[in-house]
Amino acid sequence: MRVNSPGVRPGYCVVHICIVQDYEQEAVHVGGLDRRPFLQLHSAPMRIVTSTAAMQRLALRWRRAGTRVGFVPTMGYLHDGHLSLLSRARRLVGKRGIIVASIYVNPAQFAPTEDLSAYPRDLERDRVLCRKAGVDVLFLPSDAEMYPGRAPGGHSTHVIEEQLSQGMEGGARPTHFRGVTTVVAKLFNLVLPDVAVFGAKDWQQAAIIRRMTRDLNFPLRLVVAPTRREKDGLAMSSRNKYLSAEERPQATILWRALKLAKEVVTSSRTPNYADVLKSELAALIATQPAARLDYLEFFDGETLQPATAVTRGAHMALAVFIGRTRLIDNAVLG
Amino acid sequence: MRVNSPGVRPGYCVVHICIVQDYEQEAVHVGGLDRRPFLQLHSAPMRIVTSTAAMQRLALRWRRAGTRVGFVPTMGYLHDGHLSLLSRARRLVGKRGIIVASIYVNPAQFAPTEDLSAYPRDLERDRVLCRKAGVDVLFLPSDAEMYPGRAPGGHSTHVIEEQLSQGMEGGARPTHFRGVTTVVAKLFNLVLPDVAVFGAKDWQQAAIIRRMTRDLNFPLRLVVAPTRREKDGLAMSSRNKYLSAEERPQATILWRALKLAKEVVTSSRTPNYADVLKSELAALIATQPAARLDYLEFFDGETLQPATAVTRGAHMALAVFIGRTRLIDNAVLG
Repeated sequence: MRVNSPGVRPGYCVVHICIVQDYEQEAVHVGGLDRRPFLQLHSAPMRIVTSTAAMQRLALRWRRAGTRVGFVPTMGYLHDGHLSLLSRARRLVGKRGIIVASIYVNPAQFAPTEDLSAYPRDLERDRVLCRKAGVDVLFLPSDAEMYPGRAPGGHSTHVIEEQLSQGMEGGARPTHFRGVTTVVAKLFNLVLPDVAVFGAKDWQQAAIIRRMTRDLNFPLRLVVAPTRREKDGLAMSSRNKYLSAEERPQATILWRALKLAKEVVTSSRTPNYADVLKSELAALIATQPAARLDYLEFFDGETLQPATAVTRGAHMALAVFIGRTRLIDNAVLG
Repeated sequence: MRVNSPGVRPGYCVVHICIVQDYEQEAVHVGGLDRRPFLQLHSAPMRIVTSTAAMQRLALRWRRAGTRVGFVPTMGYLHDGHLSLLSRARRLVGKRGIIVASIYVNPAQFAPTEDLSAYPRDLERDRVLCRKAGVDVLFLPSDAEMYPGRAPGGHSTHVIEEQLSQGMEGGARPTHFRGVTTVVAKLFNLVLPDVAVFGAKDWQQAAIIRRMTRDLNFPLRLVVAPTRREKDGLAMSSRNKYLSAEERPQATILWRALKLAKEVVTSSRTPNYADVLKSELAALIATQPAARLDYLEFFDGETLQPATAVTRGAHMALAVFIGRTRLIDNAVLG
């Protein structure tokens, strides 16, 4: 079924499957970038691409046309944090640039014990949000597209970062960053962006991707945009959805620990011993019955080297289980 | 010193250092691809680029201009095998395409016990050969350009292939392919080729690079060109230079072993047991006093899975020390 008679303004809630199919074929077969007769009915058309080959073909065409491309890779279940990355990407590439958002819950970055199957998904809502946010292309690859033949003889190449990945999230989730760097390298090669925007909430991830981009000479600029927070300070995260009504207020303990650390550091005239400060913050976190501290670290924001003496400008990150939900947060101190 | 007065036709043997400097600055600063006033004096100008940033800037400009780029990465000390890769690359991109050759002896693919410092080099001769072969850009990065800050805090990202890299060269040289895949990923991102040409002599390497290209979605085509041989069958290799006058005739034993295997396989009506055939070939190799077999393997040419029964179409590879020189060769049987 193809809806293309003039005057019809299809909402993709109704005919989205057909539209996906159409866009896909178009991405593969149409010669020029602007020949989108069906989509011209929309004032802000958004193309949906599910095949890696079609995505890369579009990307090569943009590069040849000199079109600037901004890229925001996500795992979906979008919130205001993601939307702020999209608007940052738009500012970076300008009105005439192209914004690509990807939604892909990458199995390779989840350990078998983690929440891959439970990870929240709401593709319909994500599509609406992306379109409203001015996304030009929403890239929705399947596992089969991203890792064809994961059976023996299939995918066997990985990108690993061996220094910044060691501590914190890398310590708690040993195979996590290998999955992240591999999928981001793949996405960079598929989308060929001029600029990619990552969120500061995953500070270690952003530092590792920056290092990978530099070490492997990817021809793009990496931008890290600030963490968005709820009114009570909780960092926005798709995983906040897991929190029960009793847990939700306790989840602010991550932000309160960061604020206390900031206060201590800005009010001290001498450096604070990291171990002492950690104990104080651990005690604060322990006041919440549902909270269990996973790690808390002070470090240099770029090299991620742990700091033994904490001064202004140091970075702090922590991971805390609130019930069964593992949350992370970070901030620069002072 | 800049030589640019009309009528002067500088040979780079005389003023190459100045020219490198000039090309380099031009690659960085000149706006248009064709504004090469100095080089227009040559009928076949060859640009020499030593900085990674300049290389990538040129590559992005070509991509924007829709110019096809063929790439032949080498470790220098060029021989007819390399030249055949360059002419294959030229055929693939056509007269209007750009050919980039790189010469970089990559430390990351040599183990501490190997021949990194002794690896033969003759840059002057390589330049002449590249220019004669119609190379448009010769990329000559230094270690400092390729691995800035190898000190702590420096390069920490690697590309690893975990399946095809296990046996043969990967078994004999455990860190070798990790160094190869990492540097080739970097070179792909710096040169942004449409097509890259590798030699069949390093069959396992070519299979691994092909797997990496597919797994990480590099937007390029990989072509493997046939092995070039001396008249007596010895596969061309920069390392042949190491052979003494007594060793040189004995080095043909690799090719003679491959020929014997072909004869056995084509004359048999039933599959040959790999172990039996290996023993026969090992006995042949042992007839040469300077020869010591490192490994000999029968396998599937694409998956590199070892074959226990050897039939037509199987692949054979071997590594043999001739004195202190380690040589490799391979062929499809039948």
